[in-house]
Amino acid sequence: MPTDEFIVTPWHVEGEIDYDKLIKRFGTEKISKQLLTRIEKLTGDLHFMLRRGIFFSHRDLNAVLNEYEKGNKFFLYTGRGPSGHTHIGHLVPWVFAKWLQDKFGTNMYFQLTDDEKFFSKQNLSLEETKQFAFENALDFIALGFKPENTKIIIDTENIKTLYPIAAQVAKKINFSNTKAVFGFSNDTNIGMIFYTALQSAPCFIEDRPVLIPLGVDQDPHFRLTRDVAPKIGKQKPALIHNIMIPALQGPGGKMSASDDNGTVYTTDPPEVVKKKINKYAFSGGQPDIEEHRKKGGNPDIDVSYQYLRIFFEPDDNKLKKIYDDYKSGKMLTGELKAILIEKINGFLKIHQEKREKARNQLSKFLLENS
Amino acid sequence: MPTDEFIVTPWHVEGEIDYDKLIKRFGTEKISKQLLTRIEKLTGDLHFMLRRGIFFSHRDLNAVLNEYEKGNKFFLYTGRGPSGHTHIGHLVPWVFAKWLQDKFGTNMYFQLTDDEKFFSKQNLSLEETKQFAFENALDFIALGFKPENTKIIIDTENIKTLYPIAAQVAKKINFSNTKAVFGFSNDTNIGMIFYTALQSAPCFIEDRPVLIPLGVDQDPHFRLTRDVAPKIGKQKPALIHNIMIPALQGPGGKMSASDDNGTVYTTDPPEVVKKKINKYAFSGGQPDIEEHRKKGGNPDIDVSYQYLRIFFEPDDNKLKKIYDDYKSGKMLTGELKAILIEKINGFLKIHQEKREKARNQLSKFLLENS
Repeated sequence: MPTDEFIVTPWHVEGEIDYDKLIKRFGTEKISKQLLTRIEKLTGDLHFMLRRGIFFSHRDLNAVLNEYEKGNKFFLYTGRGPSGHTHIGHLVPWVFAKWLQDKFGTNMYFQLTDDEKFFSKQNLSLEETKQFAFENALDFIALGFKPENTKIIIDTENIKTLYPIAAQVAKKINFSNTKAVFGFSNDTNIGMIFYTALQSAPCFIEDRPVLIPLGVDQDPHFRLTRDVAPKIGKQKPALIHNIMIPALQGPGGKMSASDDNGTVYTTDPPEVVKKKINKYAFSGGQPDIEEHRKKGGNPDIDVSYQYLRIFFEPDDNKLKKIYDDYKSGKMLTGELKAILIEKINGFLKIHQEKREKARNQLSKFLLENS
Repeated sequence: MPTDEFIVTPWHVEGEIDYDKLIKRFGTEKISKQLLTRIEKLTGDLHFMLRRGIFFSHRDLNAVLNEYEKGNKFFLYTGRGPSGHTHIGHLVPWVFAKWLQDKFGTNMYFQLTDDEKFFSKQNLSLEETKQFAFENALDFIALGFKPENTKIIIDTENIKTLYPIAAQVAKKINFSNTKAVFGFSNDTNIGMIFYTALQSAPCFIEDRPVLIPLGVDQDPHFRLTRDVAPKIGKQKPALIHNIMIPALQGPGGKMSASDDNGTVYTTDPPEVVKKKINKYAFSGGQPDIEEHRKKGGNPDIDVSYQYLRIFFEPDDNKLKKIYDDYKSGKMLTGELKAILIEKINGFLKIHQEKREKARNQLSKFLLENS
């Protein structure tokens, strides 16, 4: 891999991602000002993740909005591979999906791919990934989705519903396709090879258009789905992509649920959050205070600032002040980190309470098999 | 393919099979006289399909019998790919399985692979293969299995039970393995690639040894299963193989459920059976009666005789008389065919009655999902 290059696949993200290059490489469309204006007209306001380009790219979003304007509702679908506890990066597409659900009044499906993580992680058992699936589901429910129009799919629990749909998809995908899209080889296990058909299945669970908010690393799955859809008489899913959320140690990788120190989990207590941010959050500041005051910090590479921008400071004015103060050297790295720690712990205090309450709500959210 | 060569895979059988060569090619063991004696000791008699070498090959049958003698029961598993109506060739391993069940007092699982036939047949929908699965199940039940210790598995219906087991298997099989065993290529659809894991799953549905009576063309699936079993802490399945049942038009292919004229279906009325045998059953006789009386016929290539040997004439003395009379020229082809037609129609009359009664028993046989 040349030093200016990067890798983005559903199972491996590496290097510093150039999102404009990625749009070209994947063949997606950048979210234009016109599209933002259109969304704002329909919703009344614009989620800060749209304003700030956290959601930066899409496929066929205009088509979905065209149908919506004609009175044909879409539904939402996103998911999570339960290889560990939920970290705050996972919440990005879920929080955004919640906003979309509220604004467009849609049904929502949330897929927990316990089988995928079993197939892709050598050291995880299916019992473990399923256990994580139930734990991750609590974080999802805690965000305030309504059970009446939200269903959680766990692959091994809902396979009876998913498999007949996945079979239609699987018949139209050959090994070459998976090699081209995922880089699979002769050594790839047959669970992994088949799995993409199961990630496609929820796209066709209702007979209407689907919009999928998701991390851009998941796009390859739905490139296959979009190729297959017309062949099985279905509409292509529309996608809206968020950027990868940097690990604490800095840009050049997505936050990984399997690296304890690089990750803030939704289950972390306040003192652990404080320690992780102070110790590991990559800083855009200068080596010492004197130099920092003189030269200022670089918020564009500072992970604490990025977390505020991506998730924890929805107020644009407050965010701008932090940006300016840090850049000018007026704000020190320690002060920036303190702001983030307070924001995260404030969020997690409420989230963790809701998360515990979600245990009693879980059964209302689980999809029943057809 | 050289003229003396043959192909045997789960999806394609071609050429005249040399079963001794096939045993070497597949790496199975011929059923020896000693093994037959051992079985007879345990069961009190020897099924004619064993006496006549219709079941000719095995894997680890001795090991299963060793365990049985120690008091550790095995269970039975066989199945059918529901691509059409049941033909009489399909009944061979089922009838034999029924005998094994009676003699050894075992549980029995019967898998109907509606997904496999959907994946492998371009022109069949999943609705169609599932419909055939329910139809084929009636033929199975009609043979007299007891619902208390017999369960029918339909892949798409029982996927919730099968998939977690299949996933354990799938994680240990890579694309290279399926290429080597099935001859899959980059063009093979990912449903087919994964499918073998689902055919493995019933091997591990009970935590005890399994014995699988099956057509030898299905052996490759279980070669993979046997490789995987110790890797997932399970026992290797034991197998007992029957020869391929020739199509009406003659040896050099298995009876195919998709060729109407080459096949006697269990649903055929008597006049259709009569017409098919008279018109299509490959004859080992001479071109005219005079020559036949002089030179005699060849029962070893005569399909009508083979059907009597394989299925319809359990009495060895009667069969020998037919063999001798046909070979000497005393019996004409028309007479031999008349015997077979009477035998088939006698069998089908009772079978079709039982088959209709089976509709009401079906629900008692269907495996419930765990």
